[in-house]
Amino acid sequence: MERAARIAVCGAGAGDASSYKQAYQVGRLLAQAGAVLLCGGLGGVMEAACQGAQEAGGFTVGILPGPNADAANPYVDLPIVTGLGQARNVVLVLSADAVIAIAGEAGTLSEIAVALKVGRPVVGLGTWRLVRSDGHPEEGIRYAASPGEAVRWALEAARERGREKQAPGAAES
Amino acid sequence: MERAARIAVCGAGAGDASSYKQAYQVGRLLAQAGAVLLCGGLGGVMEAACQGAQEAGGFTVGILPGPNADAANPYVDLPIVTGLGQARNVVLVLSADAVIAIAGEAGTLSEIAVALKVGRPVVGLGTWRLVRSDGHPEEGIRYAASPGEAVRWALEAARERGREKQAPGAAES
Amino acid sequence: MERAARIAVCGAGAGDASSYKQAYQVGRLLAQAGAVLLCGGLGGVMEAACQGAQEAGGFTVGILPGPNADAANPYVDLPIVTGLGQARNVVLVLSADAVIAIAGEAGTLSEIAVALKVGRPVVGLGTWRLVRSDGHPEEGIRYAASPGEAVRWALEAARERGREKQAPGAAES
Amino acid sequence: MERAARIAVCGAGAGDASSYKQAYQVGRLLAQAGAVLLCGGLGGVMEAACQGAQEAGGFTVGILPGPNADAANPYVDLPIVTGLGQARNVVLVLSADAVIAIAGEAGTLSEIAVALKVGRPVVGLGTWRLVRSDGHPEEGIRYAASPGEAVRWALEAARERGREKQAPGAAES
Repeated sequence: MERAARIAVCGAGAGDASSYKQAYQVGRLLAQAGAVLLCGGLGGVMEAACQGAQEAGGFTVGILPGPNADAANPYVDLPIVTGLGQARNVVLVLSADAVIAIAGEAGTLSEIAVALKVGRPVVGLGTWRLVRSDGHPEEGIRYAASPGEAVRWALEAARERGREKQAPGAAES
Repeated sequence: MERAARIAVCGAGAGDASSYKQAYQVGRLLAQAGAVLLCGGLGGVMEAACQGAQEAGGFTVGILPGPNADAANPYVDLPIVTGLGQARNVVLVLSADAVIAIAGEAGTLSEIAVALKVGRPVVGLGTWRLVRSDGHPEEGIRYAASPGEAVRWALEAARERGREKQAPGAAES
Repeated sequence: MERAARIAVCGAGAGDASSYKQAYQVGRLLAQAGAVLLCGGLGGVMEAACQGAQEAGGFTVGILPGPNADAANPYVDLPIVTGLGQARNVVLVLSADAVIAIAGEAGTLSEIAVALKVGRPVVGLGTWRLVRSDGHPEEGIRYAASPGEAVRWALEAARERGREKQAPGAAES
Repeated sequence: MERAARIAVCGAGAGDASSYKQAYQVGRLLAQAGAVLLCGGLGGVMEAACQGAQEAGGFTVGILPGPNADAANPYVDLPIVTGLGQARNVVLVLSADAVIAIAGEAGTLSEIAVALKVGRPVVGLGTWRLVRSDGHPEEGIRYAASPGEAVRWALEAARERGREKQAPGAAES
């Protein structure tokens, strides 16, 4: 059995028009590639990505922080209701094969950080730049120049991760 | 937009043949009714329910306790990877419109308890019987005599819950 | 290094005078025995237990469901702020060497269930009675007749659990 | 009732000698100021900070990711056992009045991000530098030059946060 790739799209609940447009396009391209779109289920970048995916015939999952499904944006096909507050970001990242971070505020930063910690590939689209305590830039984020590049890289990284796990003797991150 | 009903099927990872048969049938009937099946994603009753649903063309979601999707049983269409251990039971119950508990051990009991706490309808199929501290039986569980009855009651309760929330002035649990 | 025993006291946020009196006495006796009292940090049985412990010179920890320490009752020495909603019950039980359940509603039932699942000893004081799906009563709860008995049994069980874990070849639950 | 300030010290489980020395000194100074030290409960920077605090007569809390108290470092007075994996970082930050981040890897970055998200003051000691998506540096982190400065600023910020919450009409973050 082969499951569809699951790609998390992370970004602010209140962003700007440019990030919404990118998110819509990312959602659209993920749907066209047959991937499942995961997000935090609320408004802003999350909603734009879900709308793009749903309008292209894709499937969208919203992993919500509160205790009620009603908070999901109207383009969420399947709400997952955690009641965990900010800790839901960890569930979102763990559930994904790869993460695309679009612009974003502190919540998005926490998702990037968790992805780096648990070994999920991260593609950035106009998002945070991070300098480690030794003065070197964090190298775990691949910065894309366009929604198309972000989606292509995320899907490649998800496939690569799948292959590594199937290799004999592969350790699980 | 109208979302499909989400019904959680709870039961032991290691049960007996009779509970597996019931779970398979519950999954089958949920799929035929167009509902999404949610479960804990592992083996036993969870796997039997997913198999029943998938073979009838349904959609199955496994909300996993560990940090890796690989632990999902082969009949899970969408793994949600929480890394939360036992706390994932809360996510499973909150995400559901109604809960069907089949036989079960302490994990299933915790799911029944959370459902009673957060106001999700519970249908029991050969599961725990509970006596409150005042000596009265817990009345929040409706005990079904067959998989067909369990599925019918769970779907009715889910619909009823949806109607109550849409009523003017409805408070959210 | 030897740490003080950690005993969780579970019970309803809105109970009756009798359960509050028992909780106060349980808190008092735990403090006199040098144990740390853990609870859910809110009112009712939780507050009565904390008051009893604090007035006897003990130390009290409130593991809160919401995102703010302000919700802690005034007898909590150390608030642990989870923001996890109902999932905080799992943190409370895992953090304890043993659990005392006093009367209680569905939240307390979920704590009993998690304790049975993760192998923490449970002492009941006028709390839920549970019948398993095979018709036999759940045997993992020891029912005490008084606060004194509940505290004595909980401390014994906590010590016993500590000894088992130090035995050579001991498996960890 | 006035509770002691709770300061989270975040840093890597495997760091270098310099960060351990800073952590030890931070722990020591927090204890001398009467603050409770919170941390992730494991080794490295967490252990060094606990040792510094405990040797100066302070009180240390370890908020552990796994399901067993045994994983706590020997200088933890009170283990809080979450079983939540990486989501425990959220509990650590929410429980603190202020956060001191020492050097650190991705886990520490996630704690900084959550603190920025939920409004807990952050003091950095040789830790991550963050550039927002608009090209401006993140201004929510105050970078200290020494353990003494870090502790002084964290305690000031914790006091300031307490005052704001007591002001009439104060909203809670």
